[in-house]
Amino acid sequence: MVTNTIDITKTMIGIAASEGIAIAKAFRLETPELTIEKTVVTDIDAEVGRFEEALTQSKAELEVIKEHARKELGEDKAAIFAAHLLVLSDPELSNPIKDKIKSERVNAEFALHEVATMFITMFESMDNEYMKERAADIRDVTKRILAHLLGVTIANPSMIFEEVIIISEDLTPSDTAQLNRQYVKGFTTDIGGRTSHSAIMARSMEIPAVVGTKTVTGHIENGTLVIVDGIDGKVIVNPTPEVVKTYEEKKAMYLAQKAEWTKLVNEHTVSADAHHVELAANIGTPEDVKGVLKNGGEGVGLYRTEFLYMGRDQLPTEEEQFDAYKSVLEQMEGKPVVVRTLDIGGDKELPYLDLPKEMNPFLGYRAIRLCLESQDIFRTQLRSLLRASIYGNLKIMFPMIATLDEFRQAKAILIEEKEKLECEGITVSENIEVGMMVEIPSSAVIADLFAKEVDFFSIGTNDLIQYTLASDRMNERVSYLYQPYNPAILRLIHMVIKAAHKEGKWVGMCGEMAGDEIAIPILLALGLDEFSMSATSILKARSQISQLSKEDIEQYVESILSMTTTEEVVSLIKNRF
Amino acid sequence: MVTNTIDITKTMIGIAASEGIAIAKAFRLETPELTIEKTVVTDIDAEVGRFEEALTQSKAELEVIKEHARKELGEDKAAIFAAHLLVLSDPELSNPIKDKIKSERVNAEFALHEVATMFITMFESMDNEYMKERAADIRDVTKRILAHLLGVTIANPSMIFEEVIIISEDLTPSDTAQLNRQYVKGFTTDIGGRTSHSAIMARSMEIPAVVGTKTVTGHIENGTLVIVDGIDGKVIVNPTPEVVKTYEEKKAMYLAQKAEWTKLVNEHTVSADAHHVELAANIGTPEDVKGVLKNGGEGVGLYRTEFLYMGRDQLPTEEEQFDAYKSVLEQMEGKPVVVRTLDIGGDKELPYLDLPKEMNPFLGYRAIRLCLESQDIFRTQLRSLLRASIYGNLKIMFPMIATLDEFRQAKAILIEEKEKLECEGITVSENIEVGMMVEIPSSAVIADLFAKEVDFFSIGTNDLIQYTLASDRMNERVSYLYQPYNPAILRLIHMVIKAAHKEGKWVGMCGEMAGDEIAIPILLALGLDEFSMSATSILKARSQISQLSKEDIEQYVESILSMTTTEEVVSLIKNRF
Repeated sequence: MVTNTIDITKTMIGIAASEGIAIAKAFRLETPELTIEKTVVTDIDAEVGRFEEALTQSKAELEVIKEHARKELGEDKAAIFAAHLLVLSDPELSNPIKDKIKSERVNAEFALHEVATMFITMFESMDNEYMKERAADIRDVTKRILAHLLGVTIANPSMIFEEVIIISEDLTPSDTAQLNRQYVKGFTTDIGGRTSHSAIMARSMEIPAVVGTKTVTGHIENGTLVIVDGIDGKVIVNPTPEVVKTYEEKKAMYLAQKAEWTKLVNEHTVSADAHHVELAANIGTPEDVKGVLKNGGEGVGLYRTEFLYMGRDQLPTEEEQFDAYKSVLEQMEGKPVVVRTLDIGGDKELPYLDLPKEMNPFLGYRAIRLCLESQDIFRTQLRSLLRASIYGNLKIMFPMIATLDEFRQAKAILIEEKEKLECEGITVSENIEVGMMVEIPSSAVIADLFAKEVDFFSIGTNDLIQYTLASDRMNERVSYLYQPYNPAILRLIHMVIKAAHKEGKWVGMCGEMAGDEIAIPILLALGLDEFSMSATSILKARSQISQLSKEDIEQYVESILSMTTTEEVVSLIKNRF
Repeated sequence: MVTNTIDITKTMIGIAASEGIAIAKAFRLETPELTIEKTVVTDIDAEVGRFEEALTQSKAELEVIKEHARKELGEDKAAIFAAHLLVLSDPELSNPIKDKIKSERVNAEFALHEVATMFITMFESMDNEYMKERAADIRDVTKRILAHLLGVTIANPSMIFEEVIIISEDLTPSDTAQLNRQYVKGFTTDIGGRTSHSAIMARSMEIPAVVGTKTVTGHIENGTLVIVDGIDGKVIVNPTPEVVKTYEEKKAMYLAQKAEWTKLVNEHTVSADAHHVELAANIGTPEDVKGVLKNGGEGVGLYRTEFLYMGRDQLPTEEEQFDAYKSVLEQMEGKPVVVRTLDIGGDKELPYLDLPKEMNPFLGYRAIRLCLESQDIFRTQLRSLLRASIYGNLKIMFPMIATLDEFRQAKAILIEEKEKLECEGITVSENIEVGMMVEIPSSAVIADLFAKEVDFFSIGTNDLIQYTLASDRMNERVSYLYQPYNPAILRLIHMVIKAAHKEGKWVGMCGEMAGDEIAIPILLALGLDEFSMSATSILKARSQISQLSKEDIEQYVESILSMTTTEEVVSLIKNRF
């Protein structure tokens, strides 16, 4: 039996959340205990003043963090702090606290705690992911105000000035946004998964990370040497010099590989047997374009326009949208930019739209369903897109199309708006392709009918998989059914590509599957024309494709589509390609 | 402009909820206002006694209603009153009321109202259909106790002794269960839809009904002559003698048609060109078998076993289940009985299982997913099914199968339990067919792979449609996407039937679509082998099929499967067949 003393090398297994190897001293990021006592106050005005002062300090602090996040991580990542600032400025939170101080003559800490707990409990009981996130926002904000009231300093990751690996139970959005890339070499957490907030942040910052280790905080003290292996999902505590050497080699190999990939930045994407495909990137904001270009993206395959609508208290104006679209198109300098129209509703709620609660938001009133009913929102977006179209190579696609009727309606509205603009004397590009997401099973099954009317398809695998297998991928109890390589999914993809090519249309994919090592050979063989993924995955994918022969894999397609389980598919691909 | 005086004939449009014509005097079923005043009580013990007395009276009354419902409507319809009785006996409801009487010295009515309102608000805010129903249960029960406390008589529909048409804002489960079929000739309500509780009840009682008229209670006084046209969804108030005559003719024609259908009760189901199919019924309880036989069902195509598990506070024992399955098999005298294993979870919660709340219950942890994890529940059900198998022609089917893995696991467990029983010396039928529901798109897409391993398929269209079009059919905002005739749905059905027949397996359908007039010709042409529907639809379907030529319709199949909208399909069928 091995005793758990601190000097013994220990390997922990977690989820590889962000590729790369980091070797550095541990830095434990802990939240101090904030204890609240109830006291009676005599000077009520002074107490309200203390509370207001803490609010002001918190706001100032959040503004700094938000700016830091915007610069380092982009507009979409900064949006969460904009949301925190909204909470801080919300009189519905601050007024009841001040009232409580006055009417019950209690201290600000206690009043804050009571009121915030009430809101948190209320939002958490709402059984709705968006509301639960609001609860998390209030919790984060409350902690910040409380720290100011108590005069306690919350550990500030932006204040780290030596090379470290962060060890933490979890990382809050505030934490991650403050990480200094120069000094934070990697991180590892007890909780979280590949799609948790901190994992997504780590990938976009290119910091190696292993999450979901369950117990990492229980085994690592400050200053202990730690290796984070974000390739294989391992954390090695107190490695021997030999182990360190092995990992330094692994790291060097990984960096060499990355450098090799970097050489491909200006190359086209061509398979070993000279078949050309396009590698594009998914983006959320104009700021993300820098990363696309840096990583050799040949286009934007999915511009999620939701971020324009989020973290604010009203709809964005036509001008605000126009500026964003124009900026993306100009930066991409004539490379294709596929913009998805608003995909909001369901779990992605906008407080100011006041949408009804739904029992099954993923099967609910969202995206094009909402846009066809709330046409004012839709038309404003289309107008700003049409106006921006002359600044680059714009393609428009509609999300959540289930029936031909819906596509026809959406396209008719687009044409109406184009004609209106032309009547107003505004120039609109004549070469805008109009396509749709294939993310609902029905649209894959009748792709041949759609193919006659669209200019292109983009397969949204995240949703397509969850609807086709009737399994909410956010629900851990059924997440085993999120099976990208299930023959049913591969067949639907095959149907879509065949149907499109028959009509001379192109097919892209913008779900996570497009950047997946196992999926790439199959998708190449099935004839996918465009792969859209996170920018940081592009060069690796380009390298992988350059080594694949489409013709070779094609010989296996029929047999892959008749395999009865996901495991058989994975094993064939791993062994052959 | 027509004035709205009561003597003028007025026609109101609603939703045809249950077929037939009724002509009779109006009987307004109204709930008296139950006003609650807060008073201070001096004799606390006497007040608690009053409350307990009202509880006892309510229980006795509910027992009577429950028995009435069981006899007239069957076990499943009685289950709701079992649930009400559970609420009445729940100390979590009664103790806080008694505490309130004691600690606040208030009257029982006020204490009841306060506590019940708290629970109702809590359950209603839970954003979960099951919990909302619990709120409705508490509301119904509270009203009953309150009426006893106030000495007010709630209108009792079982006390109607002349022929009437019930006019009501809505009908509660208690109301419907008490309707006396002899005197209640029809009903019409302001609210409700085709799948609302009262509509389902009306169809199973074969009482003509029009629901969702919005304003019927505002236009009809007690004693007014009313016609309820449950065929076309109309309510005629104060009809002229000519109108009455027209409707008497319509009624006579409908009854003649019904009588004509009744002649088919012992016939096989054969199309005009001599193609044989099987018409079976969907049932919930052994009591439902009577209706199946009376309506000429050739089998049970779907026995929903959930009712065995509902309206109680613990799992049913192996013996209880065995008795139910044996009873159904024996009553069906060798005709096929397809039993679906437990399809619970998601929105159909069982309080005693304490399942986690889910964000998208329709895409969640339910049916086979739950059974493969909670194997004790599953194995008990399978054992009782296997033991009952020798009493008839049992076929077992698994719900919500998405992958081959799941089917293989479920079948392996079934075989294990069979072997265990045989080791114990218990005889099990050797001819049990084992099949699966096709209700998840993936299983339709890879039906050819499944067909090699199953004995039969039963297509569950309700779920298949909602997953394939990613649309919750309970959600009014997207219910336009519940499209049975969408070409995508028809193609999936076609794929399943072709795949099964290639392997010599049969295909049934047990969703609402199987009994649908427009769908029947298409399904016949696609080669569906078994149509399972509500028992009361069987004879009409048999009559329809006897007039259809499968070969004729087959010539249109290819063109139907390539139509781009539901409307085109409906119009072709309506015009041609």
